[in-house]
Amino acid sequence: MQTCAKVIKCRAAVAWGPHKLSIEDVEVAPPKAHEVRVKILAAGICRTDDQVLEGEMGGISYPVILGHEGAGVVESVGEGVTNLKPGDKVIPLCIPQCGTCSSCLHPATNCCFKTHLKEPQNLMPDKTSRFTCKGLQVHHFLWNSTFSEYTVVPEDAVAKIDAAMPLDKACLFGCGFSTGYGAVVNTAKVQPDSTCAVFGLGGVGLSAVIGCKAAGASRIIAVDINQGKFEKAKQFGATECINPRDYDKPIQEVLLEMTGGEGVAYSFECIGNVDVMKAALEACHIGYGTSVIVGEAPAGAEISFSPVLLFTGRTWKGSIFGGWKSKDCVPRLVSDYMAKKFNLDGLVTHTLPFDKINEGFELLQSGQSIRCVLLF
Amino acid sequence: MQTCAKVIKCRAAVAWGPHKLSIEDVEVAPPKAHEVRVKILAAGICRTDDQVLEGEMGGISYPVILGHEGAGVVESVGEGVTNLKPGDKVIPLCIPQCGTCSSCLHPATNCCFKTHLKEPQNLMPDKTSRFTCKGLQVHHFLWNSTFSEYTVVPEDAVAKIDAAMPLDKACLFGCGFSTGYGAVVNTAKVQPDSTCAVFGLGGVGLSAVIGCKAAGASRIIAVDINQGKFEKAKQFGATECINPRDYDKPIQEVLLEMTGGEGVAYSFECIGNVDVMKAALEACHIGYGTSVIVGEAPAGAEISFSPVLLFTGRTWKGSIFGGWKSKDCVPRLVSDYMAKKFNLDGLVTHTLPFDKINEGFELLQSGQSIRCVLLF
Repeated sequence: MQTCAKVIKCRAAVAWGPHKLSIEDVEVAPPKAHEVRVKILAAGICRTDDQVLEGEMGGISYPVILGHEGAGVVESVGEGVTNLKPGDKVIPLCIPQCGTCSSCLHPATNCCFKTHLKEPQNLMPDKTSRFTCKGLQVHHFLWNSTFSEYTVVPEDAVAKIDAAMPLDKACLFGCGFSTGYGAVVNTAKVQPDSTCAVFGLGGVGLSAVIGCKAAGASRIIAVDINQGKFEKAKQFGATECINPRDYDKPIQEVLLEMTGGEGVAYSFECIGNVDVMKAALEACHIGYGTSVIVGEAPAGAEISFSPVLLFTGRTWKGSIFGGWKSKDCVPRLVSDYMAKKFNLDGLVTHTLPFDKINEGFELLQSGQSIRCVLLF
Repeated sequence: MQTCAKVIKCRAAVAWGPHKLSIEDVEVAPPKAHEVRVKILAAGICRTDDQVLEGEMGGISYPVILGHEGAGVVESVGEGVTNLKPGDKVIPLCIPQCGTCSSCLHPATNCCFKTHLKEPQNLMPDKTSRFTCKGLQVHHFLWNSTFSEYTVVPEDAVAKIDAAMPLDKACLFGCGFSTGYGAVVNTAKVQPDSTCAVFGLGGVGLSAVIGCKAAGASRIIAVDINQGKFEKAKQFGATECINPRDYDKPIQEVLLEMTGGEGVAYSFECIGNVDVMKAALEACHIGYGTSVIVGEAPAGAEISFSPVLLFTGRTWKGSIFGGWKSKDCVPRLVSDYMAKKFNLDGLVTHTLPFDKINEGFELLQSGQSIRCVLLF
């Protein structure tokens, strides 16, 4: 199955440091053993990429090729790769599934020990890079680096999907949709007829709204300081939308009042803001409320809270990539989409050619876009 | 069923302020509607009572009659009490079960909205006291006040138990045993063959060890700075006992090393110390670990932690009174004990006559006793 792959010269968006992103000519080395080189055809711009560009993420080495929400086709495979071949339609996975660690072997978690939170992913597993630009080594990002016409990923971090799946939608399964939807249906396991609150109506938050609707929640309260997001939230199933800036009291108090003093059964923090994480916990029912942290907080951020909030019976969980065991589940999610079990098309508000990536980041930062998908 | 009850003169331990506990002659008024007057025959001394005497608990009004782990018989009942009659063997409940609030109606929580964490319980529900001493009103504690020969409790805060149950053991179901055992089997739902860590080997922590053993845990790592507790912990099922003072690194690192770098599946904080709560979370498996806060932290205490600890998949929960719906479950727990489904007798390390209550507190403070039970 191995091909005699050579170095490919192509274009990639290289981040030279915070706020310094430019399209460059790069060289992409062939995949080594157990690696796959992928021709990227579509890539979403996620808030996490923006957090890196804003300098809010720790553990980044520059220069780096960002992007972790892409889709494409296999161009070539390295030695030992038996389950993928050139031409396969694939999604790079920002959470790998090695299949052998204690997380991969446990039914209740997807937090593979090879995730970036346990092991740096700024280089490939053999601690070298497949990218060079102007003679310099360029770093990988989450073993994905989808802001490049070609990228190399470990075989444990790529899922083969249905050949009929349109790639401009497929890329959303690489992060945003899977993360938000899975936090609801996997991590929280929202029950029918329950009351939910979703904080933050970006791609992840709106996907959580889709999840709440699919789970049969009777009330889905969407919370955002940008009410330009409310119409979309309602289209996806939100029953009420509230803007914290419209109130002179903390939003958790507003939510308690909206629920007769009881609090919501489930809340989802889809921003990565520690103050909102705490508010989301406080907004939950004292006895049975579950709050899920879905957003990734900036490096070094801490939450200070009273343990009484948990002592009475609340549950505080986190959800990375929606709790999905990535390599196993992403193909199934794609199949469910093809079978029209849910519709995420409305999440893509903008498409741009790849070389307008900086314009795409501006759309995200200004709050105009939910997902801007770059087409290659 | 109502009796023509009169004021009873008897002895009670009155706390006049922190560190000021003395046996006094008190008057105990008859039960009002939906109240029950109970002749206490045995009462355990719990760490929570001691926390009040140490001045660590908020929301206490002095003078007060403490105690919340008692057992006795109904002496008389107020108007409208139909499910209890004089002579019934009962356990006062430090968490009530009103049966009508959203917690009582929900299957997954026992945090009745009438709990002291939602509503002050320093007076009876009608905001008056049944106790006087030297002409002064004396306050109730958790609607229990079991450090008195007679006490009055709301009918929602008392459970009728098997008439054959010995009261010197029954009292442990009023707090310590139910709390620790339930945190494991109800709140965490420990799975067979899992690895557990229990922090703090008082009555609650040892009851958690009993729960882990009953749940079929393969490793039960007991943690305490008093290794005088280790022999008892091993009797109850601990497979390893460790003392944080024997290590020059944080105890969570020791636990990670003991588990091959993976962390425990379940941890239980049975002390009420915010630093230990955080250590217990950090000691859990990054992907599927569940940590349960069982100890009640001092008033105003806060925990500061990185949300990444949850983001990767850990779960942080709390457990009040072991998650048991008190009025429904305490009689069943007592029946299970009578049926020899578990054995908690070893938790009672000391018995003393009621008037030696201060000696009982000294045994607790010095770490000599697990449970000292006062006999009336």
